[in-house]
Amino acid sequence: MASSPAQIPETMTAVEIAGKGGPEVLVATTVATPVPGAGQILIRVAAAGVNRPDVQQRIGAYPPPPGHSKLPGLEVSGHVAAVGEGVTRWRIGDPVCALVNGGGYAQYCLAEETVALPIPVGLDLIQAAAVPETFFTVWNNVFERGALKAGEWFMVHGGTSGIGTTAIQLAKAFGAKVIATAGSAEKCRVCLDLGADRAINYKTEDFVAVCKEVTGGKGVDVTLDMVGGDYTDRNLIAAAEDGRIVQIATLSGADVKLNVARLMVKRLTLTGSTLRPRSTQVKAGFARALETKVWPLIASRQVRVVMDSTFSLPAAAEAHRRMESSQHVGKIVLTVV
Amino acid sequence: MASSPAQIPETMTAVEIAGKGGPEVLVATTVATPVPGAGQILIRVAAAGVNRPDVQQRIGAYPPPPGHSKLPGLEVSGHVAAVGEGVTRWRIGDPVCALVNGGGYAQYCLAEETVALPIPVGLDLIQAAAVPETFFTVWNNVFERGALKAGEWFMVHGGTSGIGTTAIQLAKAFGAKVIATAGSAEKCRVCLDLGADRAINYKTEDFVAVCKEVTGGKGVDVTLDMVGGDYTDRNLIAAAEDGRIVQIATLSGADVKLNVARLMVKRLTLTGSTLRPRSTQVKAGFARALETKVWPLIASRQVRVVMDSTFSLPAAAEAHRRMESSQHVGKIVLTVV
Repeated sequence: MASSPAQIPETMTAVEIAGKGGPEVLVATTVATPVPGAGQILIRVAAAGVNRPDVQQRIGAYPPPPGHSKLPGLEVSGHVAAVGEGVTRWRIGDPVCALVNGGGYAQYCLAEETVALPIPVGLDLIQAAAVPETFFTVWNNVFERGALKAGEWFMVHGGTSGIGTTAIQLAKAFGAKVIATAGSAEKCRVCLDLGADRAINYKTEDFVAVCKEVTGGKGVDVTLDMVGGDYTDRNLIAAAEDGRIVQIATLSGADVKLNVARLMVKRLTLTGSTLRPRSTQVKAGFARALETKVWPLIASRQVRVVMDSTFSLPAAAEAHRRMESSQHVGKIVLTVV
Repeated sequence: MASSPAQIPETMTAVEIAGKGGPEVLVATTVATPVPGAGQILIRVAAAGVNRPDVQQRIGAYPPPPGHSKLPGLEVSGHVAAVGEGVTRWRIGDPVCALVNGGGYAQYCLAEETVALPIPVGLDLIQAAAVPETFFTVWNNVFERGALKAGEWFMVHGGTSGIGTTAIQLAKAFGAKVIATAGSAEKCRVCLDLGADRAINYKTEDFVAVCKEVTGGKGVDVTLDMVGGDYTDRNLIAAAEDGRIVQIATLSGADVKLNVARLMVKRLTLTGSTLRPRSTQVKAGFARALETKVWPLIASRQVRVVMDSTFSLPAAAEAHRRMESSQHVGKIVLTVV
C-alpha cells in the first residue's frame, strides 16, 4: 500500500483555470508536484469534490486567498504520499480525506495534517471526497454559528445540494425539526427521504407562509441560506423570536433589502461566514469536532453522503456544467485514480 | 417618610396620549390610581424619564404591548407607596427607581418588584429617574447581545443622547476603546469629556473612513446603532472581522439596503432588540446584572448620569419638543413631586 517518496513523480496532471469564463476554461495541464512543508501532508488524490466556490473561482468572483493554490478544488480523498516536517498523525499510505487550500483537481494535493481526517467508516474514497467542504460548512454554520439545538426548527434552502442533503441529515441527527426548500416535486421527495419534516417546492409554494403554518405560527429558529437576494428578508419574516439566519452564499445576489425593525422586534441574528479564508487552526477545530461528533453518525449510517455523479479529472468542465444546471442531487466528484 | 396605604388617593394626575400626533396630544388628565397586583409595587413618582420610545408611542408607531399601561413613561424614581401580595424586597417608604411597563408620566406608577432597583449611591431622585431605560438598554445590547470585551473597539451613534452618554461611559469603564458620532463640534466635545477616544462629527466627517483610520485598518468590534437607513450597511463596512452590529432603533428608517457578502466575508453579526416587550423575568435578570456590576461604578463616580433638562409633569409636551429637536445632551426628565 505505502508508496515511498521516491515514487512521487516530479510533475503531475492537474486541471487549471485558464482565464475567467465558462466551464471550457478548465483545462488539463502538467505542473510540478507540490512538496509538503512543515505540518503538511501530500495526498495522492483518489477523488476530488466539486463545489460552488470552484465555479465562483472559475468565473473570477472568488479569487484564492494569499498562499492558497491557484488550482481549483477544496476537498480530496486519497492516500498519504509524503509527509512534511513535524507531521505526527499520518504515515505514508494512510487513507485520508481533507479540506484543502485549493489544488484538489490534481493527481497530488497538499493538506495541513490537522485538517485531514480519517475516511469515515463505511465510505469509499469517492464518497469520502464528497464530505469535507459540505460537512465543515454545515457543522460550523448550523451548529456553531447558528447554535441549532435539539427541538428547534431548522430550514435549509437548496435542500438537494451537497450542503442541503448534509444539513437536513445532520439537523435531524441532532434532534431538530427540518424544513427544506427545493425546485421540483422530485427534489422535495429526496428531502423527505433524507428526513426533512417538510419539503417546500419554492416554485409552487411561498416558503414564508409554509414556515408559519408548519411551525404553528412560531417561525424558524435557524435558517441556512445560500440564496440571498430577496430570500434574506423573507428569511427574517419566516424566523421565530431569537432566530438565527446564517448566510453562506448569495446565488441570487449579495445586495439585499431588508427591514431591520423585524430583526429588532424578534431579536434575530443575521450572520454568515466563508470557510476558505479561515486559519488552519480554526479549520483544525472544525475537523476535530466532525471526527468526534459526526464521523460516528456516518459509521452508524444515520447520516449518509448523497452522491449525484462522478466525472474523470480531465472532464472537470462537464462536472461544472452539471453543477451549473442545478439538476444535480447531492455531490459531484472528480475521480483521479 | 413612609406613607401608609390609607394615604393613597383614589385618583391621580397623569399625562395621557389623547390621539396620535405631535407633542400637543400629551395632556394632563385624572385617572384611577393603580393598585399593585402580586409581585408588584406602587411607586409614588418623584420623577419620570422621557425616552424616544415615548415619542414613537405618541405618534402611534410603537403601541404598548398587551397588558402594559397605555399611559406613556418607561422609567420612574420615587418611594414605595404600597406593595402587592408576595413582595419581599421592598417596604413602604423605600426609595427606588424602576423600569416600568408604561404609566411613568403620572403621580403613581406600578412596577414589578424584581425590575425595581435601589437608588444608585450618589444620585438624587431626578437623576435616578434618568437611569433605568438607557442603562437596561445599553447593558443588554452592548455587553450581553454585542458581547463587548475589554480591549475591543466600540462605536455608538448619537453619542450625546441618553443612550450615547451611557454607552460611552460604560464601554470605557469595562475597558473598551470608544468611538462616538454626534452632530456638532460641541456635542463631540461632550463625547470626549465622557471618555470617548474619538468623536466624529458626522456632518463633516465620514464615520466609515475615520473608523478604519482610528482602528489601524482593523475596524470596529461592536457598534450600537439607533439610526438605521444607510447607516446599517455603513456599519458593516466599518466593522472588524467577527464584528457585531446591534440595532436598537431606526431613526432614519427600518428599510435598509445592505451587502450580505460583507457580512459573510467578515463573519459579522447583525442583531438587535427592543426592551419593552421582554418578560419580567428577563428584565429582572438585567436589573440584577446592573445592580451588581454597574451601580458600583455610579457610586464610585466612574459613570455619571448626564442630564439635559427637567420639565414638570404637565409640561410633558415641552419635554417631547425638546427631545424631537435633537438639541438635547443627555437625559430629559419630568418632575412629579
